[in-house]
Amino acid sequence: MSFSPLLQNLITSLRALPGVGPKSAQRMALHLLERDREGARTLSESLLQAAEKVGECQRCRNLSEETLCPVCEDDSRDHQLICVLESPVDLIAVEQTGGFNGVYFVLKGHLSPIDGVGPEDLGLDQLFERVESGEVRELILATNPTVEGEATAHYIAEQLQDLNVNITRIAHGVPVGGELEFVDGGTLAHAFAGRRSLKRSQDD
Amino acid sequence: MSFSPLLQNLITSLRALPGVGPKSAQRMALHLLERDREGARTLSESLLQAAEKVGECQRCRNLSEETLCPVCEDDSRDHQLICVLESPVDLIAVEQTGGFNGVYFVLKGHLSPIDGVGPEDLGLDQLFERVESGEVRELILATNPTVEGEATAHYIAEQLQDLNVNITRIAHGVPVGGELEFVDGGTLAHAFAGRRSLKRSQDD
Ligand SMILES: [Zn+2]
Ligand SMILES: [Zn+2]
Repeated sequence: MSFSPLLQNLITSLRALPGVGPKSAQRMALHLLERDREGARTLSESLLQAAEKVGECQRCRNLSEETLCPVCEDDSRDHQLICVLESPVDLIAVEQTGGFNGVYFVLKGHLSPIDGVGPEDLGLDQLFERVESGEVRELILATNPTVEGEATAHYIAEQLQDLNVNITRIAHGVPVGGELEFVDGGTLAHAFAGRRSLKRSQDD
Repeated sequence: MSFSPLLQNLITSLRALPGVGPKSAQRMALHLLERDREGARTLSESLLQAAEKVGECQRCRNLSEETLCPVCEDDSRDHQLICVLESPVDLIAVEQTGGFNGVYFVLKGHLSPIDGVGPEDLGLDQLFERVESGEVRELILATNPTVEGEATAHYIAEQLQDLNVNITRIAHGVPVGGELEFVDGGTLAHAFAGRRSLKRSQDD
């Protein structure tokens, strides 16, 4: 093809975006250069700032450039109710239901011994510490309904078995084998409402 | 929503890309930050370089950061055969047919008196000068088959009527009212092969 080197670089770089194939990348590059240079400069700056400065919330591991993310900073939310998720994408999906007013803990993965992913990689020490401090009323385990997600939820429930905290799993409603982030808001809200306890009753 | 400011900026900035809605922008931003920071940095740099440095070829008005674009620099191409197009996107579409070995002239628009777009805005002086110098054997008018594209083609043909140059229009085959860039390569190659002269015979 007869693109100039800088244009070709731009097209190649745009392929880093998920869902962008060669044709889309060309269209995007030409659109920006022909019709929206200001948009290109703004996007360049936003990418650089975000890539350099966005780290994770010290409390919940959500993406954040500040010590605490906007959710953890929000006093109007119920900080005794923690929803445990596999990824920030899931957090967005739950937020968009508009029906959850607690806070989050983002594992950034799930237990996977075969890949060498253990409890420490998911920040579970940090989560358990928070529960052990007695400040948590309920932990909603909203890991994906996959084999690994279920195993991770059960591991967490097992570890906290003897502590004074409700541990719930989001209800079926989320299709088994599916990924949380692709579930519509209504189904997800339903799954939250129908959550059930994973903890054996202390009276059994 | 509960995005940190830098993440929200990035999502907003990604909306500058054609075809990217709010959901796609979120997915792209999270993908880059969670899984491909290097890709984000590279894209940032490519965008900046391209936005700052890509101008237009001094000969054909194609996008280029050099004085001449790769097509105009290419000695293996037929520089006596010039294809006149409305935009760089159309140039890519023609290049991808693989069947054209001439060079281009990119109008970056079409005549549109109502929008104040006249011959000088399309670089026509420059094109006519090149034809008048006698270095051009054939001019293929491949403007879009729209009212404005046709009018532009006819204006060019009219102006060069008395010069010793073949002036052709790409054949029907490109759907009337359609945009060149969305036509498949086969149709476009066919349209090139079936081009006809717009110039009245000197013998009439
Ligand atoms: Zn947080
Ligand atoms: Zn050129």
